[in-house]
Amino acid sequence: MADDLSSSVLDRFNAVVGSVGLVTDQEELDPCLAEWRGLFHGRAPVLVAPANKEEAAEILSICQHERIGVVPQGGNTGLAGGAIPHSTPEFPQILISARRMNRIRDLDAANYTVTAEAGCLLSAVQAAAEEGDRLFPLSLAAEGSCQLGGNISTNAGGTNVLRYGNTRDLVMGLEVVLADGRIIDGLSGLRKDNTGYDLKQLFIGAEGTLGFITAATCKLFPRPRSVATALVAVSDPTAAIELYGEARRALGDQLNAFELIGRVAMDLVLTHIPGTSDPLSGSPDWYVLMELGSAGPDADAVLQAFLSAAIDKGRVQDGVLAQSGMQRDALWRLRHSISEAEKKAGVGIKHDISVPLSAVAQFLERAEALATRRIPDVVVVTFGHLGDGNLHFSLNLPAGTDAATLMKLWDSVSRDVHTVAAELGGSFSAEHGIGTLKRHELQRLADPVALDLMRTIKAALDPAGIMNPGKLFL
Amino acid sequence: MADDLSSSVLDRFNAVVGSVGLVTDQEELDPCLAEWRGLFHGRAPVLVAPANKEEAAEILSICQHERIGVVPQGGNTGLAGGAIPHSTPEFPQILISARRMNRIRDLDAANYTVTAEAGCLLSAVQAAAEEGDRLFPLSLAAEGSCQLGGNISTNAGGTNVLRYGNTRDLVMGLEVVLADGRIIDGLSGLRKDNTGYDLKQLFIGAEGTLGFITAATCKLFPRPRSVATALVAVSDPTAAIELYGEARRALGDQLNAFELIGRVAMDLVLTHIPGTSDPLSGSPDWYVLMELGSAGPDADAVLQAFLSAAIDKGRVQDGVLAQSGMQRDALWRLRHSISEAEKKAGVGIKHDISVPLSAVAQFLERAEALATRRIPDVVVVTFGHLGDGNLHFSLNLPAGTDAATLMKLWDSVSRDVHTVAAELGGSFSAEHGIGTLKRHELQRLADPVALDLMRTIKAALDPAGIMNPGKLFL
Repeated sequence: MADDLSSSVLDRFNAVVGSVGLVTDQEELDPCLAEWRGLFHGRAPVLVAPANKEEAAEILSICQHERIGVVPQGGNTGLAGGAIPHSTPEFPQILISARRMNRIRDLDAANYTVTAEAGCLLSAVQAAAEEGDRLFPLSLAAEGSCQLGGNISTNAGGTNVLRYGNTRDLVMGLEVVLADGRIIDGLSGLRKDNTGYDLKQLFIGAEGTLGFITAATCKLFPRPRSVATALVAVSDPTAAIELYGEARRALGDQLNAFELIGRVAMDLVLTHIPGTSDPLSGSPDWYVLMELGSAGPDADAVLQAFLSAAIDKGRVQDGVLAQSGMQRDALWRLRHSISEAEKKAGVGIKHDISVPLSAVAQFLERAEALATRRIPDVVVVTFGHLGDGNLHFSLNLPAGTDAATLMKLWDSVSRDVHTVAAELGGSFSAEHGIGTLKRHELQRLADPVALDLMRTIKAALDPAGIMNPGKLFL
Repeated sequence: MADDLSSSVLDRFNAVVGSVGLVTDQEELDPCLAEWRGLFHGRAPVLVAPANKEEAAEILSICQHERIGVVPQGGNTGLAGGAIPHSTPEFPQILISARRMNRIRDLDAANYTVTAEAGCLLSAVQAAAEEGDRLFPLSLAAEGSCQLGGNISTNAGGTNVLRYGNTRDLVMGLEVVLADGRIIDGLSGLRKDNTGYDLKQLFIGAEGTLGFITAATCKLFPRPRSVATALVAVSDPTAAIELYGEARRALGDQLNAFELIGRVAMDLVLTHIPGTSDPLSGSPDWYVLMELGSAGPDADAVLQAFLSAAIDKGRVQDGVLAQSGMQRDALWRLRHSISEAEKKAGVGIKHDISVPLSAVAQFLERAEALATRRIPDVVVVTFGHLGDGNLHFSLNLPAGTDAATLMKLWDSVSRDVHTVAAELGGSFSAEHGIGTLKRHELQRLADPVALDLMRTIKAALDPAGIMNPGKLFL
């Protein structure tokens, strides 16, 4: 495959990064060419790993000049195919990786900031913050393998968004290599800076289509002193949202998580995941898993008092508060095992929608009705980050459903579900991005003027079209 | 002056907005042509006030076609001259105002969002939120006259940034008319939405140079149940920053304000503002005014406990906790009267710098040394939003200093002060923006690649250069 690129170009890359920064061996390349779930298989003659921003800049200059596509890849844990290259002899594409740029450059405890290179594992940034007695709140299932640069490029969400925001909210400054090889030294630990356009915003969530991020300064937070976790039963999603409103009012900004789990989702877990049991009796229709992180020592008492009042008011039917770390883990396991349980139960059509909280109940009603009309024996699995309005609404089909049937249904049903979300002011991709997977939906559902403006920006920043070609746009 | 524009163009404007939407009377125009402190005086043949986004779009189409500059103006309370037009017969410029677009379109209490038109007074948005039992935390001295569109265009800061962020952090979606008259319908109340570039970020803080904002969806918060305010004495800025670090750790995210006041600033207030007195004895060198807003009923007790511990540890020398609303107002009056006291004491060279918190002490030391070298009898007045790293570092000259001397010194000393801030990773305009006032400093201090990228974006979004000409860029 290396013949997508001339040997003279490879020699020039080699002159910049040395052999330690070049991967051309097919076996070593293979894991970087496949999306981890197997949805996408790509092709590239080489992965280039510069040791610093200057090397990255030289590589991009060469690519700009030779019109070679450049696909930035972090830990390759994305869910939309955004990091998979599709090189051809006509339009060669290389992978570029920040894996050798993995230093924590600075931890400024007084300023509550960390400056880290793009190739740092997310878990390494978390660990550095903890060593400085601070919290870097971004947290994802893939945190042991995903990289900070990828998190920023995809504006990653995760389990702490409710309290601390998306990755965008955590980034204070960026160092970026532009498509033409120029470097923006935009690292900054300032809470306030109104000096022209806020350029970093362009690169956050751009999925590598506008430049190559090499380092970032991010916000840190105090570490909570105590944490309390509860699983409670509520009558329906509307009641869950009312409970959320009260929790925000009563608990201030200390609510870390507010997750919704439907009956079907819970049953899948109880059936398919060994060692799980329902801590609540009476098989409630809906559960909320909520967690409080407090600056004081008494998160348990605060959450207990809140839930007692909610039970008295009839907002909550039943509930259990974790009495130990083990119990907390058991509660979270119920939530985190849903995807695995779905897989064991059959095959599923998955969604990553968001709607305003006020529209959640209406979304569920309409989307479920549409899905049931198209697939009479569908099993609707509802769960998600309710506090963010982000639902993973899955449609499970019986085990044994063949792939062709699944794919045919996936397309038509997903369009329906996305259309319902859009009609309610929602999004068809709350946290996973567009990549290759959702380009058609972006084309179909985005405001045409907005989409055109995105193309204008792409053309202005990357006129040669070398940055992550074929992503985002059709 | 109306002869900057042909009567046929005025007729076309009239056909779009009607006479109710056109101001050509010089007396009525005058207040819109002068910066409120008298620093800038402008010129424009007309102010156009469209009734809705469609009319605004038609006006911009005409201007684009005829190459007429368009200067968006909100409440005209800005501090950098960004809203003042400078029309000439060669390049006519009109004012455009959203004053007739002043409806609260929607308050979604469950989703904690408000959608309001750009011409709403900030105080009207606050009031609408309060009616829905929610808090819109943006708060400024000018809140009774500034408009939401202007707040967004300048990424306004204000007194609640520490806890709730700048305006940028509060905006969830925007409706914008582009320079060519197309409309982006980007209103959205979603906490999570990863579908392409986040276009709204371009217009927030762009000072009207990229488009005309007509409406926004903004985040709301729970209203705090109790508030506690204290004035404490600390030994120096470093001690103040250590206290801030502990306060964040101990009080979680409930700290609303953390303001630094130096001895000189306090003395100016005590000398020149009638009815003020120092609640602390012994003339401490430095004061911190801090405020806590709690979701619980006991903010006073929480702050009291924190301060007692800080006194025991020697971090705080003395302190007083407001025991009533009247006492709270008296404490805040000490802080809010500093500018007025400065004015009474003489003339001053003002700054709006920010640095990382870890560099505050170093900034003060270096900036004071430089200022004293240039102006031996200068009075250095230090105060500001310490929690944000944002200091209003003023250099007061004796009353009677003539204007020419002041202006000569202003230029050279300000450059020195801004250079020190920049060398420490800081900003020369933390919250006031660039406008006309700081274009030279932007040109001098911005990363050249970043500045060039700003120009690229300007050219891509406004190729005819009609949006707020002559602002931001030289």
